[in-house]
Amino acid sequence: MNGAESLVHTLIACGIDTVFANPGTSEMHFVAALDRIPGINCVLCLDETVASGAADAFWRINRRPAATLLHCGPGLANALANLHNARRGRSGIVNIVGDQATDHRPLDAPLTADTEGWARSVSGFLRTATHAATVGRDAADAVAAARTGTIATLILPADTAWTAGGVPGAPIKDLARPIPDPATIAEVAAILRSGEPAMLLLGGRTLNDASLRQATALAAATGAKMLAEVFNARMERGQGRPPIERIPYPIDAAIAALAGIKHLILVEAKPPVGFFAYPGKPGPLWPPDGTVHTLATIDQNGSAALAALTALLEVPPIPIVPTPRPAPDTGQIAPEAVATSLAALLPADSIVIDEGISFGRGFSRFTHGAAPHLWLQVPGGAIGGGLPMAIGAGVAVAGSGRRVVAIQADGSAMYSIAALWTAARRQLDVTVIILANRKYAILLHEYAGVGANPGRTAMDMLDLGNPDLDFVKLAAGMGVAGAQATTMSALNDLLTASFERKGPFLIELLTI
Amino acid sequence: MNGAESLVHTLIACGIDTVFANPGTSEMHFVAALDRIPGINCVLCLDETVASGAADAFWRINRRPAATLLHCGPGLANALANLHNARRGRSGIVNIVGDQATDHRPLDAPLTADTEGWARSVSGFLRTATHAATVGRDAADAVAAARTGTIATLILPADTAWTAGGVPGAPIKDLARPIPDPATIAEVAAILRSGEPAMLLLGGRTLNDASLRQATALAAATGAKMLAEVFNARMERGQGRPPIERIPYPIDAAIAALAGIKHLILVEAKPPVGFFAYPGKPGPLWPPDGTVHTLATIDQNGSAALAALTALLEVPPIPIVPTPRPAPDTGQIAPEAVATSLAALLPADSIVIDEGISFGRGFSRFTHGAAPHLWLQVPGGAIGGGLPMAIGAGVAVAGSGRRVVAIQADGSAMYSIAALWTAARRQLDVTVIILANRKYAILLHEYAGVGANPGRTAMDMLDLGNPDLDFVKLAAGMGVAGAQATTMSALNDLLTASFERKGPFLIELLTI
Repeated sequence: MNGAESLVHTLIACGIDTVFANPGTSEMHFVAALDRIPGINCVLCLDETVASGAADAFWRINRRPAATLLHCGPGLANALANLHNARRGRSGIVNIVGDQATDHRPLDAPLTADTEGWARSVSGFLRTATHAATVGRDAADAVAAARTGTIATLILPADTAWTAGGVPGAPIKDLARPIPDPATIAEVAAILRSGEPAMLLLGGRTLNDASLRQATALAAATGAKMLAEVFNARMERGQGRPPIERIPYPIDAAIAALAGIKHLILVEAKPPVGFFAYPGKPGPLWPPDGTVHTLATIDQNGSAALAALTALLEVPPIPIVPTPRPAPDTGQIAPEAVATSLAALLPADSIVIDEGISFGRGFSRFTHGAAPHLWLQVPGGAIGGGLPMAIGAGVAVAGSGRRVVAIQADGSAMYSIAALWTAARRQLDVTVIILANRKYAILLHEYAGVGANPGRTAMDMLDLGNPDLDFVKLAAGMGVAGAQATTMSALNDLLTASFERKGPFLIELLTI
Repeated sequence: MNGAESLVHTLIACGIDTVFANPGTSEMHFVAALDRIPGINCVLCLDETVASGAADAFWRINRRPAATLLHCGPGLANALANLHNARRGRSGIVNIVGDQATDHRPLDAPLTADTEGWARSVSGFLRTATHAATVGRDAADAVAAARTGTIATLILPADTAWTAGGVPGAPIKDLARPIPDPATIAEVAAILRSGEPAMLLLGGRTLNDASLRQATALAAATGAKMLAEVFNARMERGQGRPPIERIPYPIDAAIAALAGIKHLILVEAKPPVGFFAYPGKPGPLWPPDGTVHTLATIDQNGSAALAALTALLEVPPIPIVPTPRPAPDTGQIAPEAVATSLAALLPADSIVIDEGISFGRGFSRFTHGAAPHLWLQVPGGAIGGGLPMAIGAGVAVAGSGRRVVAIQADGSAMYSIAALWTAARRQLDVTVIILANRKYAILLHEYAGVGANPGRTAMDMLDLGNPDLDFVKLAAGMGVAGAQATTMSALNDLLTASFERKGPFLIELLTI
């Protein structure tokens, strides 16, 4: 058994069944081992940003890691933006990166690059294998780390793959996430009892139906407010589930949403700050005289903390009044109309991937009445996460009948458009809605904040017209069927049809 | 004057006239300054890998730097693969990266990332600006560094842009590249006089007409052999210029090419090593009993060294017999046939961008008889350099009547396909020839070297069919006209037509 084979045996033994791959020469022995040893679903992605974004979404849906298989330094570099998003969303990924053979690296061949240096800041676990005999143990360690919700990067010099003497690593028992101690629960209970203006800020894994019901009941019983972070890895939403609003993205609206709060209580959330800084505006979003308390850190079990708090305060469950499911909107194309149609037509148990940026920013507010679904955002804000996540979600739910609906802004779609090919090859049940406003609308808004009207040079950098992108042709070029919608009724018809068929479909919605 | 304005004034004063941009919110004040202050051609790229690859090619043609304008950490990350290529090709780039405001960075907003850490290994110059008042000086320092042929990364926190008190930096005088000392020249002269088997290995800027004539004359007079490095940033080639072959890419052929050499003389080249390591094969390509000598390091002026060597050895110029220009090939589609047609039809003073990978690997051998042209390769081997380089080349020669011809493998095209849109927007005179073998042929070859026939899982990761990519549709989706060629005569007709029209054109050549 060579090192590559020991890797594959270890991955299988540790429960890894999916690899999002974009291999190169230094990974050929791993490809050969994956070929010889059945048990792993190898999904080819046409560039590495698709592979890492897909692995991120796979985790968020299945709560267990997939692996990547990336080509040495520059291949890893191409994956970094979506690894950044995965890190911010606390996704677990076994991030396997091939590299120059151990003795070859000092020769500085042209492709040699700073693989470790590039991986470091996104990786909660980072190791470069040194011998074939220990690759199995390295892989078991990496899977164990990834299962805690971190990126576990395992760099495998080519010789550790091809050398004989591989030994499969034994699976390592999962550690439970720590639960906040009773004193912390009691402290927060006292704050909520005080009657002073308080807010529960929910993030991480707390945005599930059970925890949201408890948070909603706690808020109702104590008068506290409740919000979710601005961008969230995974929200359980839809009809019958407790609706929760998010901190608004625009800085002024975000500050207004937290105005008057004396006690901000974090539950797997970070202290909220502006997505960017603006001249003369504060960075923290909570009031200067407010105090931040932590019920559960981002590494703790916030759901258990909410349950304990509910019990301590003896807060009874409250009924959740289902938001009515609307009819499809047939008016003018506008954000609320599109969201309303989505709420009307979304199949139950769908996965919504939200990289709607500006036009799509308010969609979540109008979709509480949709059939129950998961809603996945881009927690790190790195552009281009949407389509790769749609691939990972499609693979995660393949064969289950569940639909993936990607709400995708046009500008950000172009950072990872090659994702569509994998949707076609795997015939993933993914509906992509391209929100085509043919500009970087978010940047035009920001530009207005700078206090000037954009001239020709600025528009050259902010406008996507001249020529217009044709996403139906782009999709066709990668084997994905699609159509353009210029009216709400056309959108409604296309959504309905795409939800009834198998495989991917792309709708280019002209929003201008 | 704010910091952003001081940056733009400094760039203009230092001779920067082109920016390849993909800005985000943290760069809005720079966009506004570029809008207010005329003098810089701002070229929007739809992702950052296009911007960095374009800036690389711009340098190679003009031998002066362009700037990039990238969005904080993840935007830089997307640019790294082509920055790696630029570093290996010793291109100068003023790599401008916006970032979180100085006071905002410690708050760890979602997009905050390890911008400096990611930039470090590709940057010969790396600085994070600290105050608006010093941004101008920082920019002048960055341009001076870039002009030496390195990547000068200047990270600009948003507050250094928007704060008043900017002061334009004064241009800094260029330093000449160092010339090897006379003792080194004399030592190499003695080796060449000895009559022992010797080889001149040329790289860097020595692959120009004058230096190639001197190297050819030196080789003829002394019996030395002459080769270029495997991948080169820029070669002056074509009819009337001295032909030079390159070290072959496959490891066995590369070792054979250097067999028997006692003295390997490097001229702006690195000691040649295998692109990758293979079990049981050596890393260095020269014979174990051979000696490596350095006539000029990669940082020295190898052309001056060759001139000095020629003078010392009193080697007279020799006539270069022009390779005959062939007729277009009308036989079966095959690498030699395609290269022959290219040699027949290539317009004078064209720029050839070569990311032909496997099918295109031998093209250079059959194009010595083409009209004089520049030939640019991917020196770092990071996949996806070709199309972005075609954009940079197209911008560099815009309006001159010179044609850019991109020889582009299909698999690698998909890492940066969004480049085509910029070709359409700018109506660049770029002809893209997609070599569509519908597989990762280079990897299938490497897989064969592993000693196994690929099974279904391996083919799932090495084959690009199912579905076939349709590059004509992809191009149309971005506003670039194109056509498919399935015969040599169709290819010849399409090449001829594209060379006669203005603007971009894509030819998908089916090579299977």
